[in-house]
Amino acid sequence: MDAFFYPSSVAVFGSFKKGAIAYEILRNIVEGGFDGNILPVNPKGGRVEIAGKSFEIGEKLEEPVDTAIIAVPAKIVPDLIDEIGPLIRGAVVISAGFSEVGNGELERELVQRAKKHGVRIIGPNCAGIFGVHGRFFGSFEVRVKPGGLALISQSGAFGGAALAMGNDEGVGFSAFVSYGNAADLNESDFLEYFADDENTRAIALYIEGVKDGRRFLKALRYASSKKPVIVLKAGKSASGAKAAASHTGSLAGSYEIYRAAFKQAGAIEVEEMEEVFDAAKAFEMYAKAGKRVAVITNSGGPGVLATDKLERLGLEIAKLGEETVEALRSFLPSQCSVKNPIDLIADADYERYRRTIEITCGDENVDSLLVICVPPIFIPSEEIARAIVEANCSKPIIVNFMAGELVREGVELLEKHGIKNFPTPEKAAKALAWLSRRRNGAGEGI
Amino acid sequence: MDAFFYPSSVAVFGSFKKGAIAYEILRNIVEGGFDGNILPVNPKGGRVEIAGKSFEIGEKLEEPVDTAIIAVPAKIVPDLIDEIGPLIRGAVVISAGFSEVGNGELERELVQRAKKHGVRIIGPNCAGIFGVHGRFFGSFEVRVKPGGLALISQSGAFGGAALAMGNDEGVGFSAFVSYGNAADLNESDFLEYFADDENTRAIALYIEGVKDGRRFLKALRYASSKKPVIVLKAGKSASGAKAAASHTGSLAGSYEIYRAAFKQAGAIEVEEMEEVFDAAKAFEMYAKAGKRVAVITNSGGPGVLATDKLERLGLEIAKLGEETVEALRSFLPSQCSVKNPIDLIADADYERYRRTIEITCGDENVDSLLVICVPPIFIPSEEIARAIVEANCSKPIIVNFMAGELVREGVELLEKHGIKNFPTPEKAAKALAWLSRRRNGAGEGI
Repeated sequence: MDAFFYPSSVAVFGSFKKGAIAYEILRNIVEGGFDGNILPVNPKGGRVEIAGKSFEIGEKLEEPVDTAIIAVPAKIVPDLIDEIGPLIRGAVVISAGFSEVGNGELERELVQRAKKHGVRIIGPNCAGIFGVHGRFFGSFEVRVKPGGLALISQSGAFGGAALAMGNDEGVGFSAFVSYGNAADLNESDFLEYFADDENTRAIALYIEGVKDGRRFLKALRYASSKKPVIVLKAGKSASGAKAAASHTGSLAGSYEIYRAAFKQAGAIEVEEMEEVFDAAKAFEMYAKAGKRVAVITNSGGPGVLATDKLERLGLEIAKLGEETVEALRSFLPSQCSVKNPIDLIADADYERYRRTIEITCGDENVDSLLVICVPPIFIPSEEIARAIVEANCSKPIIVNFMAGELVREGVELLEKHGIKNFPTPEKAAKALAWLSRRRNGAGEGI
Repeated sequence: MDAFFYPSSVAVFGSFKKGAIAYEILRNIVEGGFDGNILPVNPKGGRVEIAGKSFEIGEKLEEPVDTAIIAVPAKIVPDLIDEIGPLIRGAVVISAGFSEVGNGELERELVQRAKKHGVRIIGPNCAGIFGVHGRFFGSFEVRVKPGGLALISQSGAFGGAALAMGNDEGVGFSAFVSYGNAADLNESDFLEYFADDENTRAIALYIEGVKDGRRFLKALRYASSKKPVIVLKAGKSASGAKAAASHTGSLAGSYEIYRAAFKQAGAIEVEEMEEVFDAAKAFEMYAKAGKRVAVITNSGGPGVLATDKLERLGLEIAKLGEETVEALRSFLPSQCSVKNPIDLIADADYERYRRTIEITCGDENVDSLLVICVPPIFIPSEEIARAIVEANCSKPIIVNFMAGELVREGVELLEKHGIKNFPTPEKAAKALAWLSRRRNGAGEGI
């Protein structure tokens, strides 16, 4: 599988006219900085210019490469595989026109030819793959920053949109794979692979349906025992399942069965697309967190919203120990509330935040902290950010700096120190909920 | 009440040192472009420079004004009200240190003195008010763009953060009021006022608890009969309610009772802070929508996610009429799905979107449309946006252009034509759910 995600050479098959799929993929590979051998192939030959570089287009493949990316008409793909089979280890078949439009026969033919040569197939009908740490962007989708998230998507378009959203959210990626019709390699193979991939810290999976449930459960269990697996299941409702079936030809099956499987395997199921990245941000910082949360805020209202959401998600508002309450009372102004949520009120400064975090963090009744900051009136938000960064606390801290533009400096300082900001109290609460589910789920049943 | 939200003159009381509350409020009023009389007042007199203008600070108020904004120490507020009572119609008391810290006596004193002069009070312990269309920014919170949303917030900090978030989301405001301890005017008064305010098209309300439930229900009913009222209730959970009680001193009461009241009154309750603005965006475009939705997409996966969410929220995936299906089939490529969700596939262009929207819109089984666009590969996203803008359709259309940066041009074109974008399929589905709730709720029980 390394041939796909850490290749040392790649061949691209298709049209290299500007705007054509193969051209766009080639452009992504070149502009992305891939430093292995890159071979564009088209029977017509010629040259193609990209990013100031000029490539000769081979009329056929004449030397071995790790991976072939194929964007030629569906009907000639099996013959092409036969021709180049001896020279490649894996093929990513972008071409559409196989089982998804009723051409199951052509798809079986493709797999048979590949098997004959010991070649593994991703696709057909897919958007391609990224191996981000090897700077290999073998897809026409938007390039992303390196990081720890491997995104496995049954839907190519979902995957593409998700990469762009992840970029916007500041999430870094280790890899991306859109596996389309899954004629050969499928979600289970990728789960197992990324479970052991050292650049991958968390896995995000978008699925509509799987063909081999037993195998999937095993793979999901294995992956979840190694790292967080965030799952977004589409086709949950009756109409949704029907739409998914007509879309990918996969039988979505009963959602209840999937849900039970996710839970049993210890995977983190999210409800909405956006939550994939909220969860990814949380797991980029922490492996897990306990259920007893201390909320620290400089404003009552947002503290209440966080508290509501935490309880609703099954977490506990930690009951602070006597000593903690006394220690807080000893230095906080009398208008501050030292009950959890701890309200440091509007004029809270560096010192008030830092000491409160440290004291609360030292309480054995507290597993994790949710720290809220509305734009402080008298000091820059950076000071509160610095208090969070410098506080001596080894428990997970999830931060909610509210009101975007007004706390920008604070948020930037946090990010510089690897602390991601969650823009609302509710999102911060959800982040803790996902972290807490991991503890119970991980390795269960293994 | 117009004296507060459309004043022709205002006096500000407090310290005009840079960074002090009264200074910041004065700055906001001046920089916001208020063109009425502005009188800073402080017994020490002097001058204050703001935005290139120089103001003489009056030692006392000597001429009548509509509104006084007061940010002096709590204990001298009642005497100040007595002194200026004959010259003002309303007072916004920013000062803290009243019932919220146990000084109920001082607060009663304040109200009594005001009553004596027929002066109405907002606050104390509040963040101030905006009358955006009169360019009156009587608060230290961030200024906002004019529009149709009136924000009523029990929590000042929540209100401030919400204004900033609304700005980021492109929501325009008619007014803002943080009413703090609600010693005199409260949420019910504001609901009734904004129900009849012609610049206000929708009302957003953040509450932790109300004192007079019967009056509140009546006001909420009245306002909801006139325009959409979006409610975010904090203090829903046991710990949240306790925290709210210690925060504002308001008895949050059983959430179940509130929930029933919101429903009975026809208000739109949202779950999370962020949803306030998603709902506001929806109501800025449409008054309401029916339950039977047609989903149109250029990618299967996101169509499935939208379908799942719609069904989960109690909406229906419209069963398209025979004629509609035939009309679509007559011009769409055979790989397109003409079942709802309608999948126009990846190479969908202007014509395919426009005709599909028009045909579907004409189906009597369809109440509203959810139109999804993942970044098109071969054409600019602007073309799809143009198809939506130019399609001849009088039913509500909610749009989800995915993947931020990649569809920026399309989203900008939509916004130029008053069509707000919802960045995920699930958010678009929620927008339709809120619009559909309005239909049933409005006017109910009146």
